[in-house]
Amino acid sequence: MWLRNCWYVIAWGHEIPPAKSSELFTRTVLNEPVLVYRTAAGAIVALEDRCCHRHAPLSKGRREGDCVRCGYHGLKFDPAGACVEAPGIPIVPAKARVRSYPVVQKNNWVFIWMGDPAKADPALLPDNFSCESPQWKHKPGYLHYDTPYLLICDNLLDFSHLSYVHEKTLGGSTEIAQARPTIAPVPGATADWPQIGIRVSRHVPNVPPPPFYRRFRDFDTHLDRWFDYEFLLPGTLLMHSGGRPTGTTPDDGGPSVRLHSCQTLTPETEHSTHYFFQQSHPSDEGDDSVTDSIFNSLLVAFNEDRDMISAQYRTIALNPGLPMLPLAMDAALIQFRRLLEGRVKAEQAAACASASVPASTHR
Amino acid sequence: MWLRNCWYVIAWGHEIPPAKSSELFTRTVLNEPVLVYRTAAGAIVALEDRCCHRHAPLSKGRREGDCVRCGYHGLKFDPAGACVEAPGIPIVPAKARVRSYPVVQKNNWVFIWMGDPAKADPALLPDNFSCESPQWKHKPGYLHYDTPYLLICDNLLDFSHLSYVHEKTLGGSTEIAQARPTIAPVPGATADWPQIGIRVSRHVPNVPPPPFYRRFRDFDTHLDRWFDYEFLLPGTLLMHSGGRPTGTTPDDGGPSVRLHSCQTLTPETEHSTHYFFQQSHPSDEGDDSVTDSIFNSLLVAFNEDRDMISAQYRTIALNPGLPMLPLAMDAALIQFRRLLEGRVKAEQAAACASASVPASTHR
Amino acid sequence: MWLRNCWYVIAWGHEIPPAKSSELFTRTVLNEPVLVYRTAAGAIVALEDRCCHRHAPLSKGRREGDCVRCGYHGLKFDPAGACVEAPGIPIVPAKARVRSYPVVQKNNWVFIWMGDPAKADPALLPDNFSCESPQWKHKPGYLHYDTPYLLICDNLLDFSHLSYVHEKTLGGSTEIAQARPTIAPVPGATADWPQIGIRVSRHVPNVPPPPFYRRFRDFDTHLDRWFDYEFLLPGTLLMHSGGRPTGTTPDDGGPSVRLHSCQTLTPETEHSTHYFFQQSHPSDEGDDSVTDSIFNSLLVAFNEDRDMISAQYRTIALNPGLPMLPLAMDAALIQFRRLLEGRVKAEQAAACASASVPASTHR
Repeated sequence: MWLRNCWYVIAWGHEIPPAKSSELFTRTVLNEPVLVYRTAAGAIVALEDRCCHRHAPLSKGRREGDCVRCGYHGLKFDPAGACVEAPGIPIVPAKARVRSYPVVQKNNWVFIWMGDPAKADPALLPDNFSCESPQWKHKPGYLHYDTPYLLICDNLLDFSHLSYVHEKTLGGSTEIAQARPTIAPVPGATADWPQIGIRVSRHVPNVPPPPFYRRFRDFDTHLDRWFDYEFLLPGTLLMHSGGRPTGTTPDDGGPSVRLHSCQTLTPETEHSTHYFFQQSHPSDEGDDSVTDSIFNSLLVAFNEDRDMISAQYRTIALNPGLPMLPLAMDAALIQFRRLLEGRVKAEQAAACASASVPASTHR
Repeated sequence: MWLRNCWYVIAWGHEIPPAKSSELFTRTVLNEPVLVYRTAAGAIVALEDRCCHRHAPLSKGRREGDCVRCGYHGLKFDPAGACVEAPGIPIVPAKARVRSYPVVQKNNWVFIWMGDPAKADPALLPDNFSCESPQWKHKPGYLHYDTPYLLICDNLLDFSHLSYVHEKTLGGSTEIAQARPTIAPVPGATADWPQIGIRVSRHVPNVPPPPFYRRFRDFDTHLDRWFDYEFLLPGTLLMHSGGRPTGTTPDDGGPSVRLHSCQTLTPETEHSTHYFFQQSHPSDEGDDSVTDSIFNSLLVAFNEDRDMISAQYRTIALNPGLPMLPLAMDAALIQFRRLLEGRVKAEQAAACASASVPASTHR
Repeated sequence: MWLRNCWYVIAWGHEIPPAKSSELFTRTVLNEPVLVYRTAAGAIVALEDRCCHRHAPLSKGRREGDCVRCGYHGLKFDPAGACVEAPGIPIVPAKARVRSYPVVQKNNWVFIWMGDPAKADPALLPDNFSCESPQWKHKPGYLHYDTPYLLICDNLLDFSHLSYVHEKTLGGSTEIAQARPTIAPVPGATADWPQIGIRVSRHVPNVPPPPFYRRFRDFDTHLDRWFDYEFLLPGTLLMHSGGRPTGTTPDDGGPSVRLHSCQTLTPETEHSTHYFFQQSHPSDEGDDSVTDSIFNSLLVAFNEDRDMISAQYRTIALNPGLPMLPLAMDAALIQFRRLLEGRVKAEQAAACASASVPASTHR
């Protein structure tokens, strides 16, 4: 169940080599192999990493200027995916081309549009401002999951797990699980997108500072903590979170923690997922050691998640048809799954109605 | 083809940690993950190792008194499998529970009943007396097989393989294969169980002592050897075996070998199996070095079996539909497979007839 | 899509141990496990490596004279595949036999006939003369592929890949890809085999010596290169290739390179392949260091192929139904696939029409 007409993150900007590099970057998204590179003029190109001729990966070939030549029989493709040279063939047939995907870099995330290129709209990109901002500092993170992406969406849509999975890292208190979050739709900006995600706010008053906070700031009091985030289609979390001494306000100027996090999930295959993430602190609060400390804590915690979700997936795989038991804490994830399912069905119906928008195949 | 209304061994008693331990023991049986632990009062508990909420394994959580708390979202289950606490949910729904299995420890084997709990009857437990007896000594063994359990049942039901697979260990003579065993049904004690297994007796007169015997006892003569065993549903072997100088009787008091062995097979998945085994000698015959020697010989021999059966399974997998050729030596294994098949069919028919006894799903 | 009534190479002659060895050689061909050994009289025997009784591999048993005894329950088979002894069974049933395959060694290749034995005709063996000839020298090679065999046939039927896959080894010039080969059918010798393969000739005038040539001979001029080969059913390449200074003729006696190569592909399973190969030089041109140099170059180059074809296969596996785009350079491989497909269909039709020639099962 994948949405195609939407932006997925395929890479951090710095993962794509510069134009003059001979390295070819490849990553599979929605089961499609994709080659990503930069032109001399600085544009980013995303091509199907599969030669139209015999399906060899273009990433086993080489850059030639802004083009890529297949390393098997030498077909050469331009940034639009057209084959511009086939050795020994004077007139290259027009059908000789690979798919070219709309791609855009925003705040150091490289987004790819896997659906109908005509529908690709940069206005639909999420506001991942803290990924590249003078006001915010972070170290970028990436994890690979051998589980379906929806299990990780579930995890991010229900922070009650912080009390248990992250008891000794991000959590620190069972009050997080006991707090009832408010949940609301995130409306889209256009009629075509009446809803683009779920807004979740979880405020947890008067709890001990989490072990994670203690690694970069001393607190001698309990804190009021907050987690305010949007979880947007297809799988992006944008979150303000933090904590301040219980009963204080921002104006008190006490030793608070304020963080902004951008995290996003991109399906690799039906059974594996790319996870891009960062958690930023204000540039004027804390030096590099704070940046490092936040990153290291996050990495430990996200490995706790991956460990749990991988175990969950192995158990599911023993009996995939067995129903789960919905509970109150699942409200956000159920709403998100319903939203996603509705959009996927609409997209597939539209694709069936129109021969011009193939949803699952191409060319 | 698994029987459900019967006792399977899930563990040696000493594998289940004491109540005060924080370790959680888990093992998959008939494709179902099971958590096994001891209460403070000493009872053994077997719960489905899969939280009813999102299917995380409970074994990734923690003990809290006699209860277990899921490590994902904090649901807490009592020894009966009922969820007694769900963070943030004042009234836990009655449907929030995991399956609890009848479980009983007898002579250091922990048995689990995978079918209808109402049918679980301790009178059906096999008489594995030598697993825990002042009269008998052994070291306990466990092997994991990556093959279906019926291939190992086949092996145990036809000892002609001793002459070939175990030529240099348990066998030592082709006469074992040439001896014709007597085969008889083992009747059950109740009308519901007219037959519970197969009795096999193989007596082999006047053969050299097997290499295995020579490791703990000197013989300067040929032996009369005997193997008298029952192979009981679902896959338990209980055997008296031994050898004494040819022509002597027990009353002669010569240097005989007398052993009792308990071995049992528990399907893990369709393609893998747990194997629990021991071979005991009388406590008053031989010291610890004899116990060790018997155990080590058995381990070498059972690795010979596993090596052969794994190779057999790989060959079968190349062409699974190809029929085998039944021969006279297969009499016992054919009777056992027929007995098992009959009971499985009867059980499935009964389950279909009654909504109260689901055979292959639960809850 | 496998042809069965044809000769496949199962081994190099020297891979099959001598009669007095206790080693049992086994290799899977067309998904069938095969045991190959030599009798005391020097004949080669190929038996199904799967005991008819319980499907244990005979190769886990042992040689007994010219027979093989199964290591599981002791059945003994003669070189014709008949069971001549079954322990404890006075009269062995006639059905107790394993398949025996026609097998013949020619020029150090051991060929096996996987189809109807009555059709096995040594006249159909390819002329692999340079595999064993006083006029030619080589070191024999073997590679295992985890890809279907047809992808490797494709590779051998289109040498345009030399310019790209082997740019730094066998190739050295894009002119190879640009040269247009001549392609012609190879007729068979009998009415039953109107065509047995494809003849491909590729002549490339006035190109730099390839890096591969330079390792054993100095050239200070450009070369005229030639590749003249037959690619025969089911997958055997027989090739004369070489190069001489541009504009010279054989009579000029200049520093030419002349090679003869025999290469053959044998499907192991649907997804894996055996590759036997050698490239020979005339015995009177070059010493052992030349033989070594040619072998080492070939091994490097064939690993380049395997690397590319394995990558191609992984990409294909992501979307197996996606069509490829035929181009002019595919003429030979398309003709070969068509030839093969036609013969396989004819063979299957004949097998259906006649109960005496089962194509995909046996016994």
